[in-house]
Amino acid sequence: MDDVTFAVLGTGGIGRRALEVSQHKDHLTPVAACDRHGTAIDFDGLDVDELLAATEGNIDSGPQDDVATDGGATATTEGVKQHGDDKGVVASKQARPSDDPIQDVIDHGDGIDAVLLALPNYEHDFIPRVADRFLEGDYSGVMIDVLKRSRVIGMLDERTDAFEDAGITFICGAGATPGLLTGAAALAAQSFVEVESVDIWWGVGLKSGYEDNRGTVREDIAHLPEYDIDTARDLSDEEIEAIIDDHDGVIEFEDMEHADDILLERAGICDAEDVEVGGILDVRSDEKPTTTTVSVTGRTFDGETATNTFQLGDETSMEANVNGPALGYLKAGVRRNRAGEYGVFGPAELMPGF
Amino acid sequence: MDDVTFAVLGTGGIGRRALEVSQHKDHLTPVAACDRHGTAIDFDGLDVDELLAATEGNIDSGPQDDVATDGGATATTEGVKQHGDDKGVVASKQARPSDDPIQDVIDHGDGIDAVLLALPNYEHDFIPRVADRFLEGDYSGVMIDVLKRSRVIGMLDERTDAFEDAGITFICGAGATPGLLTGAAALAAQSFVEVESVDIWWGVGLKSGYEDNRGTVREDIAHLPEYDIDTARDLSDEEIEAIIDDHDGVIEFEDMEHADDILLERAGICDAEDVEVGGILDVRSDEKPTTTTVSVTGRTFDGETATNTFQLGDETSMEANVNGPALGYLKAGVRRNRAGEYGVFGPAELMPGF
Repeated sequence: MDDVTFAVLGTGGIGRRALEVSQHKDHLTPVAACDRHGTAIDFDGLDVDELLAATEGNIDSGPQDDVATDGGATATTEGVKQHGDDKGVVASKQARPSDDPIQDVIDHGDGIDAVLLALPNYEHDFIPRVADRFLEGDYSGVMIDVLKRSRVIGMLDERTDAFEDAGITFICGAGATPGLLTGAAALAAQSFVEVESVDIWWGVGLKSGYEDNRGTVREDIAHLPEYDIDTARDLSDEEIEAIIDDHDGVIEFEDMEHADDILLERAGICDAEDVEVGGILDVRSDEKPTTTTVSVTGRTFDGETATNTFQLGDETSMEANVNGPALGYLKAGVRRNRAGEYGVFGPAELMPGF
Repeated sequence: MDDVTFAVLGTGGIGRRALEVSQHKDHLTPVAACDRHGTAIDFDGLDVDELLAATEGNIDSGPQDDVATDGGATATTEGVKQHGDDKGVVASKQARPSDDPIQDVIDHGDGIDAVLLALPNYEHDFIPRVADRFLEGDYSGVMIDVLKRSRVIGMLDERTDAFEDAGITFICGAGATPGLLTGAAALAAQSFVEVESVDIWWGVGLKSGYEDNRGTVREDIAHLPEYDIDTARDLSDEEIEAIIDDHDGVIEFEDMEHADDILLERAGICDAEDVEVGGILDVRSDEKPTTTTVSVTGRTFDGETATNTFQLGDETSMEANVNGPALGYLKAGVRRNRAGEYGVFGPAELMPGF
């Protein structure tokens, strides 16, 4: 496969780490990055070290007053710190301010094989609406997100025909979970002719990474029974701190609305209802409170029932488990795109054709 | 992806189980099967139940006197039992005797998307020489084997240009290990920017499956320090029994010449020298003597060292772990082939483009 160029929309925790990890990947060149303040584009490859150093610091993860996809000063991409007189990515020498950073990327789409959407998702339809802008801008290539919520997939599915007409291969849910763990479930399922259950159980220790990942914590809180995505969106940072205090810093989640279920069903691995996702988040420790484990139970062709398991080492950070897989799936998406396969795909669908 | 048709060369343990497992896979139709006695071809799909019932029984796993790839009565495909007056696959109503069963399949190659080579490998170059016959016969499509030995890959690599010219996508080592376990290693590696070691440790309990898998046991014995593939090939069944008795039925293997190493290196996961393969075979029990485990240790982008693991449930048989993955990789190979990607690929290369 030829070299792959990619853009990152959003230079928050995920976007910045994706840029960083891409430096370790062969044949993968970041050529554009933007946030709501501006855009950095260089088809010879961004100077990632400079860009990261210039934008290092606190991440503004709160939802913007006006979550808009139509560009302008309010266009929401996951925010970055203010650095000197320049805001966000514009602190980098490679960037320039823009009234419509997303449009900048769309306008350069011919040279961009894949676009990683490292954007917040306080409104369910935010990512789908960004996709609409790329459709309107006649972009052709790969779009990829690391979203978790099941219902977003349905919104993307509604755009399948438009993606196919445009030549867009949209990869959804390609982070750690869904993403790495649904891929593992798809692989673990190969011993079986019928999968009875998939149990995904994650542990995240997010003490030192907390500042960089407030958006993720907010999204997780939306999974608690007392909250939903709308109420979580409206929480102030202080209210989030209070919720964390109420749980002594350790929040357990059960039966989450995580897209793993429908992504595994799409890939033909099992029924969505047979997938359970839960986990424990500890924001007071970098140690994982539990070992991230995927358990796939099924029946073999010769009539046995067994459980195959995949476990992530406790020392791997959430960031490591999101960004490596995301870039891997990005490359897999480009391969599909170049082969003329368009539409919406989940990570498990990019696994060998099980 | 459209429907996939495939042929099986060899109706021994692996070939028969592949046919059986394919019945559980959507859009995958077996259209041809042969052994050294004859050929069954039906483009409406073979009646697998009839074929398996007709050829059920003891498998003749010994090397033939004349291991030839040029067809004729001595053309070696993994043998099947003699059934009534008909030998092997010819016992099936769907089959007819043939002087050159492999040529029969080649002659029908236009309707066959993929060919699964479930052939013995007593000579290193047997599979490569079968590939030569398909090249000579102008076959275009997928060829896939479930071999274990590293050195065969090199022989296939020498044919890369010929495969590319012919439009052949050759998938090698696509069973349990290499195959399922190298795929798992490739996936587990995604948390890391540098993989330090891959440790593959397998357990196989092969009591009731022993008769059907003598060829596999013979190949395993060739991995013992006192033997090699030539001396193992010359062992009589009685001598093999004596070796098994000497080990009280439980044989442990260390540092095996298993292609997992070079297949992971090909996929860019790690250096071949960082891969270790070993395991324990127990032919006196169906219980696995040890849990099959893949351990991938690496360094994350943020400087941590950790080990991700993949474990197969003890209740899954070797057959289940070979044939499900083999058919999955077969379908993945067809996807690559239809996208115009030809040459030699290992299973880890078919994983998302990590």
